[in-house]
Parts: sequence; structure tokens; C-alpha cells
Amino acid sequence: MGRIVFITGGARSGKSSFAQKQAEACPGPLLYLAAARIEDAEMADRVRLHQAARGERWQTLEEPLDITATLREMSGYGAVLFDCVTLWLSNLLFHHREDQARILAAVDDLAATLPRLDVPLFLVSNEVGSGIVPDNRLARLFRDLAGSANQRLAAVADEAWLVAAGCPLRLK
Amino acid sequence: MGRIVFITGGARSGKSSFAQKQAEACPGPLLYLAAARIEDAEMADRVRLHQAARGERWQTLEEPLDITATLREMSGYGAVLFDCVTLWLSNLLFHHREDQARILAAVDDLAATLPRLDVPLFLVSNEVGSGIVPDNRLARLFRDLAGSANQRLAAVADEAWLVAAGCPLRLK
Amino acid sequence: MGRIVFITGGARSGKSSFAQKQAEACPGPLLYLAAARIEDAEMADRVRLHQAARGERWQTLEEPLDITATLREMSGYGAVLFDCVTLWLSNLLFHHREDQARILAAVDDLAATLPRLDVPLFLVSNEVGSGIVPDNRLARLFRDLAGSANQRLAAVADEAWLVAAGCPLRLK
Repeated sequence: MGRIVFITGGARSGKSSFAQKQAEACPGPLLYLAAARIEDAEMADRVRLHQAARGERWQTLEEPLDITATLREMSGYGAVLFDCVTLWLSNLLFHHREDQARILAAVDDLAATLPRLDVPLFLVSNEVGSGIVPDNRLARLFRDLAGSANQRLAAVADEAWLVAAGCPLRLK
Repeated sequence: MGRIVFITGGARSGKSSFAQKQAEACPGPLLYLAAARIEDAEMADRVRLHQAARGERWQTLEEPLDITATLREMSGYGAVLFDCVTLWLSNLLFHHREDQARILAAVDDLAATLPRLDVPLFLVSNEVGSGIVPDNRLARLFRDLAGSANQRLAAVADEAWLVAAGCPLRLK
Repeated sequence: MGRIVFITGGARSGKSSFAQKQAEACPGPLLYLAAARIEDAEMADRVRLHQAARGERWQTLEEPLDITATLREMSGYGAVLFDCVTLWLSNLLFHHREDQARILAAVDDLAATLPRLDVPLFLVSNEVGSGIVPDNRLARLFRDLAGSANQRLAAVADEAWLVAAGCPLRLK
């Protein structure tokens, strides 16, 4: 049975680096599963930098929506790093036209699948709910979804971590 | 003498659920003291969902402003959950027309009263100061007030907790 | 050799007070090194309040940009409190016209210098990356820089702390 490790933190808190180091402690080939839907130059630059930083043990797979099916079919890896939950939610928000119930159903589907995987999985997410309440409705919906998703995924994880200033704090 | 438990966290971090579970571990009838001033449909929906989730052991009281007087007169409950400090501050901000000194005096009055209550009290608040500095003056004033209030209330609490992704971290 | 203590937290989380108390536990005269570039009345008020709160053991020095050189030349103090990293970054952002590489080079220069100082140094920073992704490019650049700087400075620190609601959590 796989170990499920949930890792959250603010922007540039060092959460992805922490996840990567943890995954690299597992033997075997590693998969970086990106929720990317690369839409602009700023995002593309960020993705390229991350890929270069990971090195040769890593393969990369990009999947904007069907994360759960992709994980179910995964085999032969020593560990999988999913980066990141909030980008996936943002893709779902667009795809399901802001239908909160369908998005949370997709999250629950992922949460139900995780304990059945037989590879260690590192899930990276973001803290987006510790600023001022956003003015716009869509941003409020997104931060509510992100908070709910983080709770649901951390609940089924074997370990949960909050990363700040590059330092991991054990949540669970 | 009552136990004072201060609980903070981001939006949808699981802080209210954590507070509720802690309160339900106390024997006797429970009071949910809501700082609500329900002004729009979005807020009303959120309040209804929370009420339905709490179940029959709970009574609900709504008080937008005079939280301290309400708590002083409280009796016969096994525990009280006040949800939430930041909504109360937002009501005070409107009521006292942004007069920071009067608002912080109301917070100090609450802080001075808490140690004299004879019922366990669970205070839920929010982290609102870990995003980018807001553009507008009122939002900056609000996040300064929320930060100051959180410090003052946590200082008199017997326990303080930070909740992230549904997981409580002991602050004190 | 000096002790390096990195302290971060949200707005009004009590991080500066915590840093001040820690510094005051060191014997000898104390230096408050402010990254201030006082530009408006709101900021000036905040600075005055902080100065009055510190009392007579403290001297104050204001330096918007050359923090590293200033720290190198420092002598005769029992401890130095640098407040704060994010204001310094914001000064650098303006001074270097948003040139990310030059700003991060300045951060790396500071990080390389810290272990060679012979006075205990308390570095205060801010968490700015745990809200919704900001709409404007400059705010996104700033929060990326702040996150990267926090990681780089915490990495060379002997201790790192996250302060929430006035309560310090040990990160490292």
C-alpha cells in the first residue's frame, strides 16, 4: 500500500522542493504529475524552471483534469508527485463552469482513490485563505474550494505538512 | 472557572469544525454564539449549512455587537462557541465608523471578561494578514484590527490553536 | 559567532514584539535596523508607535537599501533587530526597477554575510503568499520574491519561527 503525503504552504514557501526531496528518498523512477494547462509565458517559464531543477530521475506527465483516472492507471514508479491541487481545482472550476458540487465530487473521488494506490504519492497544495476576503465572487469561490479540498485530502493522508520559509511543520 | 480556547486559521481551514468537536466533548447543552449580521444570500446560505451541520445539542444565538455583555449573562450551558471574532470586528468597524480606538477598547473589554466566565468558551477567529498588503485603506485597517484582536484574545486564552487543512497545530 | 534568528508571520501577528523580546534577552545596547523609507503619514505613524514602544535600550538606524553593508560595519551592540525583510525587498524592487535577478542577488549577498557577523541578529519578515493569487503582476512578483527571500534567509538561520496570534511556532 502506498504512503499518502499531503503538503501545503503559501506561494514560494518551499513546498514543492520539500515534496521533491521526500519523493527522491523513495527508490525507483519518479513521476512528476503536473496539473498544468500552460496558458501564458509567465506560467511556461515557471514550469520550465521547475523541470530543469528536478533532473534525470524524473519523468513528467501533464494532465489538467483527469488526475484520479491517471493515478489509477499509474504503475512502475517508485513515487509520484502531484503538483498541484489548487491548479487542478482552477482547471476544474473552468471546465465545470463554476459548478461547486461537481468540483467537490471530483475531489471526493480523488480522496476515495488515494488509499487504494500502491505507490507513494506526494500531493502539493496551496494555502490561499489567509489573506483579506477577496472582492470578487470567483476568487471567494476558489478559496472556499481550495480550503475544502485541502481538508478532504489531508483527512485521507498518512502525513500532512505545512511549509513556511522552506521549513516543514508537521500537521499530522 | 471556564477554559478559554482560541482557534484561528484561514478560510475553510476546518477551524469551526475543530471548535465544534472540542465543544461537544463538554457535557451539557451547547450554545453557538454567532456574530452574524446576515446581509446577503451568500452569507445566509453559509449560516444555514453550518446550523444544519451542528445538530440538536446546539442552541443558536445571534448577536452582532454586544458579545461581551451576552457572554457575561450566559448561564446553564456546558460550553459556548463564539463564531467568529473577525465577523464581530467587521460589525464593530461599521458600527463605530472605523474608529480604531473604540474597536480595540471593545476587544480589550472582551479579553478582560473572558477569564471571569464560568463556562468553557471556544473562540473562533480568522487569519487575514498573510496575503499581499491590500490596496484599499479599509481592508488594511481591518487586517490590522484582526491581527491585534487575535493577539489580545490568544494572550488571555488557556489554549490557542492554528488550523490548516483540517489539522490543528497547538500555538499555546 | 552571532546567533541568527529568522522570524516570520502575517500582518500584526506579533512577530516584531516577539523579536524585540528575544533581542532584549541579550546583554548590552540594542540596535533596531529599520528598512524604512517613510513615504506617507500612515507609515510614519506606525514607525513612531513602534519606536515609542521599544524604550531606551534601543538605538534606531534607518537604511532603505544597503542592509548587508550596514550589518558588516556594525559593532558594539548586544543584538541587532532588522525589521523587516519585506520592506527592504519592496525598496529593492523600486530601486532595481523590478529586476528580479539583481534583487535575489542582494538577498543571497545578505544570506552569505549573516553567518560571518559576530552579533546576534533577529530578522523579521512577513508571510505574504497565503492569500489568493493577486491580480496585478507587480504584486505577484513581490510575493514570489518575498517567498524566495524567506527561504534563503531561513536556510542560513540558526532558528526560524512562525508567529500567529502572538504565539511563536518553532519552524527550525
